[in-house]
Amino acid sequence: MPTSLVTGGAGFIGSHIVDQLLTIGHKVIVFDDLSGGRLENVSTDAKFVKGSILDHDLLSELFETHEIDYVYHLAAYAAEGLSHFIKRFNYQNNLTGSVNLINESVKHNIKCFVFTSSIAVYGNQTPPMSESMVPQPEDSYGIAKYAVELELKASKEMFGLDYVIWRPHNVYGERQHISDPYRNVIGIFMNQLLHGESLSIFGDGSQTRAFSYVGEIVPLIAESAMNQEVYGETFNIGSETEISVKALAKQVMKAMKLASHINYLEARNEVKHAYANHDKVKRYFGGLQETSLELGLQKMADWAKKSSHQPSKKFESLELTKNLPPFWK
Amino acid sequence: MPTSLVTGGAGFIGSHIVDQLLTIGHKVIVFDDLSGGRLENVSTDAKFVKGSILDHDLLSELFETHEIDYVYHLAAYAAEGLSHFIKRFNYQNNLTGSVNLINESVKHNIKCFVFTSSIAVYGNQTPPMSESMVPQPEDSYGIAKYAVELELKASKEMFGLDYVIWRPHNVYGERQHISDPYRNVIGIFMNQLLHGESLSIFGDGSQTRAFSYVGEIVPLIAESAMNQEVYGETFNIGSETEISVKALAKQVMKAMKLASHINYLEARNEVKHAYANHDKVKRYFGGLQETSLELGLQKMADWAKKSSHQPSKKFESLELTKNLPPFWK
Repeated sequence: MPTSLVTGGAGFIGSHIVDQLLTIGHKVIVFDDLSGGRLENVSTDAKFVKGSILDHDLLSELFETHEIDYVYHLAAYAAEGLSHFIKRFNYQNNLTGSVNLINESVKHNIKCFVFTSSIAVYGNQTPPMSESMVPQPEDSYGIAKYAVELELKASKEMFGLDYVIWRPHNVYGERQHISDPYRNVIGIFMNQLLHGESLSIFGDGSQTRAFSYVGEIVPLIAESAMNQEVYGETFNIGSETEISVKALAKQVMKAMKLASHINYLEARNEVKHAYANHDKVKRYFGGLQETSLELGLQKMADWAKKSSHQPSKKFESLELTKNLPPFWK
Repeated sequence: MPTSLVTGGAGFIGSHIVDQLLTIGHKVIVFDDLSGGRLENVSTDAKFVKGSILDHDLLSELFETHEIDYVYHLAAYAAEGLSHFIKRFNYQNNLTGSVNLINESVKHNIKCFVFTSSIAVYGNQTPPMSESMVPQPEDSYGIAKYAVELELKASKEMFGLDYVIWRPHNVYGERQHISDPYRNVIGIFMNQLLHGESLSIFGDGSQTRAFSYVGEIVPLIAESAMNQEVYGETFNIGSETEISVKALAKQVMKAMKLASHINYLEARNEVKHAYANHDKVKRYFGGLQETSLELGLQKMADWAKKSSHQPSKKFESLELTKNLPPFWK
């Protein structure tokens, strides 16, 4: 029975990876500091260790005491827009923490390191974003993610560490941290609706995104660690169906069966149309079974309405406040 | 009188920048943790503050108590080959530290942030390395430097922080930390000669580099902060005269008037022929006055023979030892 470590395994995508790995017979260790994740997301069939990837002594002990075959590195603070204002926090969590994990993975000769990067690495290049493009990230979050990607390549070259890089985009679904005010528009909308607030949109809402239901990306990410054919490869993954943020707001209201007004805020510095090419993942893994946005939103809305959520918290230690969107102040 | 902050100003290139800035009439604050630099390198006309760029509270205080116009960010641990084995240390020193400085520079609206990056950002692309290439760094040091470059671009876009990026290569000259066993081949050779040791070369010595005398690059770097025409630009800087490491060993022996054997060590993972195109710097700054390797080495050798040097110290906290070149063990 192989042993897999899932960092961020109490979080949104991570906890789904954990479930998938348990289903296919792995022994699973969840490592999470519960800063964004929740214990109730973690299956009782997994071993839970509370800790931060910044605690390299604890990580070292974890790798000493368990024979870890596969590492799924999901732990991150994924607030792209906010990352400009929490640069140090961003690089520590998303880069230094990852490097701690890479160090242990090299030392203990794990079989494969699966990393969830982000479509943010592409920056503002002309879409569709394709894996053949050289990334040119334009925000601190994307820069940190790209640095980890490069670090994995360097570690393969120097130490033989095998890896698979995934670049998902706009993932939504059950267990999303919907009360985080800084990230994931669908979760933010649902949270606002649950609180009887108006839905906030940066700019005129014409910016488009393709939203990916968590259930359709998780099986591929989970399986990739055991598929040597994809070692060293990088994949975009997610939906190809674009929708404007304004149209999305209406769909979310429908799924939640709750109506509200839209509050148009000053546009922020973000990519206008982000969409990705997924030919590569289809070539390697066969066709993705795409879940319709309607069905995915319905599943998430049903979950959101019956679940308790953490209180919404403003980020406590902004490093910069200059040019901070007024809504975040 | 403008005020300039020079991080790493007690170090090799940094201390020459300090001298140059004093010459052109700046008030200069040197910020250095003396991990590689030496107090005796610092002109008594500059104000010296001992501290690390990782100490963001101290940095914050420094920016509060002085009206800083220009920041020259030279503080770094620039051991490219070793960086694979000290990844965390590398990212903390070379990236997180830089981000602390960028945060303060944004907060205090400085006029220009001058960053010394490295030719290492190009990675193993086909030389000559040109600024029009998209960097693809392949070692932890180069990745950290490139991340700072991207962070500066993002900070210009988001906060209006002006910057100039320099990518020097293989700089040598007086005040180099010649007893650091991990970096700067010329210094290592001189130190070995002073100790009656044989000269160590990784591989057969046929790898070529173009070595740049510190005195020829420093005036341009110093002046760039005051030249709005070059804000937002990135420049390669350094010599165009290539020499093999084997031939270099002979030249260093000649300059030092000391002979020794060559100790050929197992080749390490490094770029075979690194050379850069310098058309852009010539276009913006006019022709570089190139100092011949013979003359530059002679100046450095004369300095090295009459100076005291720090004891040679092995790096104390290697994070990885797998595949470490035997010479470094």
